[in-house]
Formats: sequence, C-alpha cells, structure tokens
Amino acid sequence: MIMAGGKGERFWPKSRVSKPKQLLPIVSNNTMIEDTVKRLEGLAEYKNIFISTNESLLDDIRKILPQIPTENYILEPFGRDTAPAIAFGAVFIQKRDPGSVMVVLPADHLIMEKDIFQKDLTIAQNLARDTGCLITFGIKPARIETGYGYIELGEVINTEYDNHAYEVISFKEKPDYTLAKEYFQKGNFMWNSGMFIWTTNAILEAIEKYLPEMYNGLMEIEDSIGTADEKEVIRKNFETFPKISIDYGVMEKSDNVLSLKAQYTWDDVGSWSSLSRVNKMDENNNVIRSDWKGIDTKNSIVISDHGIISTIGINNLVIVKDGDAVLVADRSREQEVKKIVQELKDNNDLKKYIL
Amino acid sequence: MIMAGGKGERFWPKSRVSKPKQLLPIVSNNTMIEDTVKRLEGLAEYKNIFISTNESLLDDIRKILPQIPTENYILEPFGRDTAPAIAFGAVFIQKRDPGSVMVVLPADHLIMEKDIFQKDLTIAQNLARDTGCLITFGIKPARIETGYGYIELGEVINTEYDNHAYEVISFKEKPDYTLAKEYFQKGNFMWNSGMFIWTTNAILEAIEKYLPEMYNGLMEIEDSIGTADEKEVIRKNFETFPKISIDYGVMEKSDNVLSLKAQYTWDDVGSWSSLSRVNKMDENNNVIRSDWKGIDTKNSIVISDHGIISTIGINNLVIVKDGDAVLVADRSREQEVKKIVQELKDNNDLKKYIL
Repeated sequence: MIMAGGKGERFWPKSRVSKPKQLLPIVSNNTMIEDTVKRLEGLAEYKNIFISTNESLLDDIRKILPQIPTENYILEPFGRDTAPAIAFGAVFIQKRDPGSVMVVLPADHLIMEKDIFQKDLTIAQNLARDTGCLITFGIKPARIETGYGYIELGEVINTEYDNHAYEVISFKEKPDYTLAKEYFQKGNFMWNSGMFIWTTNAILEAIEKYLPEMYNGLMEIEDSIGTADEKEVIRKNFETFPKISIDYGVMEKSDNVLSLKAQYTWDDVGSWSSLSRVNKMDENNNVIRSDWKGIDTKNSIVISDHGIISTIGINNLVIVKDGDAVLVADRSREQEVKKIVQELKDNNDLKKYIL
Repeated sequence: MIMAGGKGERFWPKSRVSKPKQLLPIVSNNTMIEDTVKRLEGLAEYKNIFISTNESLLDDIRKILPQIPTENYILEPFGRDTAPAIAFGAVFIQKRDPGSVMVVLPADHLIMEKDIFQKDLTIAQNLARDTGCLITFGIKPARIETGYGYIELGEVINTEYDNHAYEVISFKEKPDYTLAKEYFQKGNFMWNSGMFIWTTNAILEAIEKYLPEMYNGLMEIEDSIGTADEKEVIRKNFETFPKISIDYGVMEKSDNVLSLKAQYTWDDVGSWSSLSRVNKMDENNNVIRSDWKGIDTKNSIVISDHGIISTIGINNLVIVKDGDAVLVADRSREQEVKKIVQELKDNNDLKKYIL
C-alpha cells in the first residue's frame, strides 16, 4: 500500500493543494509516486499494489498510474494522520486477501538501488510472516539529523534474515542537536523511515489492543465494504478516528516490533534543501534547475518551472518560482514554508496561491 | 528636450531592450517619461517640448505622449552618449527656433515639488539668456554618494537669481567613499544631475570649440534638415561621432559654465534599491510592491508584475519578478545587474530574456 494522501506543503510553491509532492517530479523526471511504483516492478504485481489517497487527488493519480486497477484505490474521506489511514488500508486489504503480508510505503520518498530494496523487502516479508511481528525499516543515519524520529536497535535476532533484523529497544521522538549527535555516534540508532511490513492480522491485532475504539469503527467499516452503505459508514467512522500517527498510536506501545536495517540508500526529500543531497551540485554547491545566470552565488537551490532566475551575491538561499508564485528563503528557515502556506490558507485574498 | 534614448539596464528584469526605464512606472503609476512631461505643464507648451530618442522606442513613446507633436521627435540613428545626442538636439531646435533657450532633461529622473522645479527652471532660463553661459543644475547631496559626478561651486554670482546661481570651480568624476564623504561635509560640492540649460547658440559655440570635428558633421546635418537626404546625412555623420558625454566633452572644458543650486528634491532612481528612498517602507524597512507573505524579512525590495512573492529569513535583498524572469540580488551588488544583462545579450539561448 502506497501512502499518497499527503499534502507536501513544504514544497510550495511547486506543491499546491491540488498538486502535492507525490504528484511532482521532485527528484527525477517522473512524479515521485510513479517512481515508487516502478521500484516495485518485478516484485509485486499491479493487482497487489494499493494506493491510499483521497477523492481530490484520485483523478490525477489514476492518470499517472493507469496500470493500477481502479478497485485498488483506498479513499480516505478525510486526512486523519497515519494510524487511521494505515488501519483502514489494513482492513481493506484483509477483506480482499485475508492474512496477507502488507507493506506500507510513502509515495514521496527516494530510494536508490531498486534491486537491494527489493531484496530487503523480500527479507522483511519473510520476517513478518515467520514472526508475526510488526517490522519497521530502520535507516542508518547519514548525518546528524534532528528532523526524524529514531529507532533504538537491540540485538540481531538471528542470521537467517541476512544478519540485519534487530530487536527494538525503543522508539525516540525527534531529538535536539546534542541528542541527535549522540545517536549518530552510538551507531545503533536508526532513522524511522515510515515504511512498515506486517501481516494484516498482526497490525489489526495491534490496533485492537492499542486503539480499541478505532478498531470497533474499523470492524463496522469492514462489514460495510461492498454494500450500498459503504461510503456512508466509512465517512461516519472516520469522523470519530483520532488524528494520530501509527508510530505514536501503535509502534511505540507494541512489544511485538522488529526493525530491519535498510541496506538501500534512502532519502525522504523532505524539503527543497534536501535536493542538494540527491541532485548534482555545481562547483559552488548550488543546485540549479532553471535557466539561470548568476554572479557570486553559493550553496543555493534555484528552481523554476520556466523562465530565468538571476542571482547576484547570494548564499544559502532557496529560490523557487512556480506559476504565479516565488519563494525566497534562507535554507535554515525552510520548514517555515508550512507556516506561509497556513497563512495563505487563512487569507481570502491570497488563498488562491495555494490551490 | 527630454532625453529618452536610455537603456535602463539596471532595472532588468522589468526593463527590457524594448521597455527601458523611462517607459516604466518605476516611482508612480505613470511611466517616468509621462511624469517628466507633466512636470513641465503650465511652463512649456507641448509644441516646445522635444523628445530625443530612437526609432525602436518611438511608437511606444508616442502612445504614452500623444500630446507631443510628431515633428518634435528627434531620432538618433544610434546611441552615441550624451554629447552627440544633445548636440544633434541643439541643431534640430536651433533650426526650428534660432537663438532659443534649450533645457535638457533626462526622461527617467524623479523630481518632487513641481512648482519649485518650474520656478528654478524659469530662473535658469533667464540666467542662460542673460549671461550666455552653460547652466547646470547642481543638487545638494542628501547623503555620501559615490555614484554621481560632482560640481565644485565657487561664489554666488549675484542676488538677482534668487541667490542660488554659482560660479563653477571644477567638475569632479565619481569619487571614492573617502572623497565623497569630504564633498558631503564641505557643502559646496553638488551632484551633477545631468540637467542643463543654455541657449542653442551657446551650446553650439561650445561644441564648435571643444568638439570641432563633430561640429562640422552637425553643420552638414543642419543643412540637410528638411531635404530628401536628411536621414542619410544624419546616419552618415552619426557614425563618425565619438561616444562621449556632454560633461566630459564640453562642460568640464568650458570656462563659461554656471551652476544653479536646485531648490527642488531630486532623485535619479538609478536602481531598484533607490526605491527605498522614494517609496513608503514597512516597519522592517521593506519596500513591497507585490502580493507578499513574509517571515523575518528586513531591508528588502520585493516587486512583481503579478503573483505572490514569499520571503523567509532574508535581509538586504532585491527581489524582482517580471514576466519570465526573476532577479534575486544582494542590495550592495545591484550595479552588477548590468553585467547580467550583458551576459544574457551574449548568450544565444538566454538572449530572449532581455528583449
């Protein structure tokens, strides 16, 4: 199940409400969701690939992914964070194919080395089926990073799983810099990637245990699937679901969790600035994706949909032009783009710039 | 005679080859040339207002200034700096109205207080007629400024001219900062504004004396005016004219120069940054002329033709979006916009962005 309901506000002005990050060609010439599906080719049949998203993005995604069967779209009536989205997906898949192994993948992450990724997925699948545990991919930190949650690994469970399946000691919230540095040095703290593997039975059992009210709603939904009331029942129950992440709602509480240390290269491409990690830079550490003419321009990201951007005497800026909007931000302040988007949303005159 | 042949490259990307500064609404809602003509209303009749420009700008200027008679356009075949442009204009006006007083005004400067300006012009006109001297307006420096030439004033010549007509000791090239500071403190160093008043006789005599070869060409042009050969003779002679400014070619050499200390407020609005002198600033010293949403934005100029510009964590930048181009420059580096324009001109793929 590919999670494709996200808003991707950090990529404004390229991302808009109608065009979130997963529908944009951020890293390659393909949209991120397209690359996510391509990465599964050879391992999963299209009939077994499910897309979790919402009505407003459905048409655009179906145009991008004509190979995915219509009945494999899992439509949330509202965005309610990852626990409800994943739980709903689990019920949907459980109904279609009881007792199957489910892989949860964000639609907007970058994974290099498709073959290694598929090998890891195969190991994870066996691990999930053999142990009945909830498996999470842990990413070996490539730098001191305060932007992610961490997984503290315990012992390797055994050598059967290519020697990189671990017990989980604890989940950690996003750390401050000092702590992130400590994690980086210790070596057994992995980034929590938001990619999960489990049997539908295992995740539904965990939800029943840790989010029992939601579980009751899910059972109502399960009964309604295929009936005339389906949509109405989904909507009614979703309204009562809490806005909670799967990490916070289930993973951190469960004692039935293992982590597979990813062998592939991963990047969440969480902001414009992250493009300097995954794009070729010029000799002044700039990432330029635009007609451009610059003087004394360093450590900057320069992107436009078309036209020219000219820069003189600048350092450490993100400059993005898209359609009727231009963003100029210090790279250290990028996360505040979300704040800008929120303020535009609340302003009747300026709202049009996020649609 | 309004000098309207300039290229205004420093206002790229708003100014383009086909749309130089004087044809843009830089300061008010009117184009600068329109405001220049309006500033003369009540003092000069339209039939006595001449526009010095070139073929490529003619149609646009005539649309902006329908009140100026067609026969008052003085068309240079090539741009050749101010000495040839002014000399050609002097011959043109001399032929039309021999022995008249000629006022030379740039089309792209800002002058506040129209009434004071007109009073000063009247005094200058009397001074030029009475003395036969070449009169230049000197502007009392408002700040330490290295971007202009200076006029060193001597004694007030007499009280007849409202007590602000002065002998000129010398003209000074653009100074370095230390010297500019000295000029600022001394009090008798004025900015050379590029505005002149003289009789056509006086300026043509001075040109005969200091630029004799050009003078011979001008006399050929004078003879050809109104004949079938006029255009051809102008072109042929202009080709031989030197690229030289009126200051360097005539004013600095002449011992027949006076300066009138301007009583009005003047600004050449020479760059985007200068808008902070002539526009209202917000509480963080920003000049904003665009839909805008910003966080922690200071001392910046933000301008767009339409659409939104969003800024986060920036200081002392000029950001201008116009059509298919965006400029982001440190304010201290603004003069290098001309270099960008030159580089675009020399690049076949990017040339389109200056047209």
